[in-house]
Amino acid sequence: MVSRRCRIAVFFLIMFLAASNARKIKQYKPCKELVLYFHDVIYNGNNKDNATSAIVAAPHEANLTILAGHFHFGNIAVFDDPITLDNNFYSKPVGRAQGMYMYDSKKTFTAWLGFSFLLNSTHHQGSINFIGADPIMVKTRDISVVSGTGDFFMHRGIATIMTDAYEGEVYFRLRVDIKFYECW
Amino acid sequence: MVSRRCRIAVFFLIMFLAASNARKIKQYKPCKELVLYFHDVIYNGNNKDNATSAIVAAPHEANLTILAGHFHFGNIAVFDDPITLDNNFYSKPVGRAQGMYMYDSKKTFTAWLGFSFLLNSTHHQGSINFIGADPIMVKTRDISVVSGTGDFFMHRGIATIMTDAYEGEVYFRLRVDIKFYECW
Amino acid sequence: MVSRRCRIAVFFLIMFLAASNARKIKQYKPCKELVLYFHDVIYNGNNKDNATSAIVAAPHEANLTILAGHFHFGNIAVFDDPITLDNNFYSKPVGRAQGMYMYDSKKTFTAWLGFSFLLNSTHHQGSINFIGADPIMVKTRDISVVSGTGDFFMHRGIATIMTDAYEGEVYFRLRVDIKFYECW
Repeated sequence: MVSRRCRIAVFFLIMFLAASNARKIKQYKPCKELVLYFHDVIYNGNNKDNATSAIVAAPHEANLTILAGHFHFGNIAVFDDPITLDNNFYSKPVGRAQGMYMYDSKKTFTAWLGFSFLLNSTHHQGSINFIGADPIMVKTRDISVVSGTGDFFMHRGIATIMTDAYEGEVYFRLRVDIKFYECW
Repeated sequence: MVSRRCRIAVFFLIMFLAASNARKIKQYKPCKELVLYFHDVIYNGNNKDNATSAIVAAPHEANLTILAGHFHFGNIAVFDDPITLDNNFYSKPVGRAQGMYMYDSKKTFTAWLGFSFLLNSTHHQGSINFIGADPIMVKTRDISVVSGTGDFFMHRGIATIMTDAYEGEVYFRLRVDIKFYECW
Repeated sequence: MVSRRCRIAVFFLIMFLAASNARKIKQYKPCKELVLYFHDVIYNGNNKDNATSAIVAAPHEANLTILAGHFHFGNIAVFDDPITLDNNFYSKPVGRAQGMYMYDSKKTFTAWLGFSFLLNSTHHQGSINFIGADPIMVKTRDISVVSGTGDFFMHRGIATIMTDAYEGEVYFRLRVDIKFYECW
């Protein structure tokens, strides 16, 4: 007969294992979370000194200083935007958001994003890489955090984006709530 | 001496563990699978109403209404294509494929893809993000499913692409067989 | 009382489990590693036959045969570059690096990369997909290996990039040290 204590030991072992192996199912709670803002000033022909992004591709008959008609369909913008901890454009940046967005619908404002956060502060050192669709008119939308380096080595997760402010077609500010679900 | 039953209990525990820890090795069987089609109609200067994609970048001396010579090397197209459950262009779309492809060889037809599926039907809600090389002339080719949101939260996998049909340089239809191997 | 041997068996089992479940923590040692080089010859209007990449997008007032001022901010180049095992441009290629880089800062040389390695040799068959920020002036910089196909099915990792050589604005060679941490 299996001794009672052996049974108890085996029971707790099974509980422990069940818990460990269920990791992926349970881990819908982020293992790390960051809220950051970034600020994009689009070059329009008259703001060379302030602009942080530029239209570099446009569809037939459009140009590179005015976002195209039809919901800017076909415009690609490259950016190097300051990242701040709060929603103030003049706060000390903690890093740069670098990459591109492309407007990819003729029927509504929507973009496809491929970019990185390069963080360089006392709190965070490393990069975070994002891709995904951004249906701009939706209040909050999710893109993918596909990996990272440094403090974010191999991390994966979801970034929830909100348009925190915008001014015509020159400025927008995004709030990015990054939730990592794989932290290493 | 270890009791026989204890040995048996420990034996099964080890088997169970071996099975659990081998998860990644065993899971070459998809945990979820989807077959979808998407339809791309390239703007050529004369099909504004029907076009779902547009050339937005081209190499030196090429233009934005005719795909460039040398296997279209250097063309970037942005698209917002309907996704259907079958190969019929007129079927009710279950979502949109949005993003870009770029022709990136002078020696054969091959493209690099970065795009998302945005699914919005009774069966699926959420986005799936893809990147990878698409050697178009190969019958089936694999790209990466790097993550997703909604029903596809954090999913990863492989998408096998087939050119299901094409008409000159105006229309193509891709069959996409998405196999998720990490499902959460 | 639990027999001594049963306790010992359970003890080793726990050690084994602790080790297995700590996999992600321990696996900062790569499960696979590859060192490869790739070679980029940028089209400048006079090297059509040799060029392996081309500028396909540029900011306002720039053109497609000369990299733009301000650290090339806004240039997107599409490439199909040979991959070699050593740093010799004339070595037999083991595959192609295909995709794009975009210069995305006005203040320093930095780029955002989205590309794939397509390996086709006796040693390796398959593709590896990369994205990430490349601060070119830093000696070694890390980008993300987000997935792969074939021999690199579902692999993830980090690629450390070094500029191994460059000649003005026409040629550069990158050494890529790929460390996979998730191997399947």
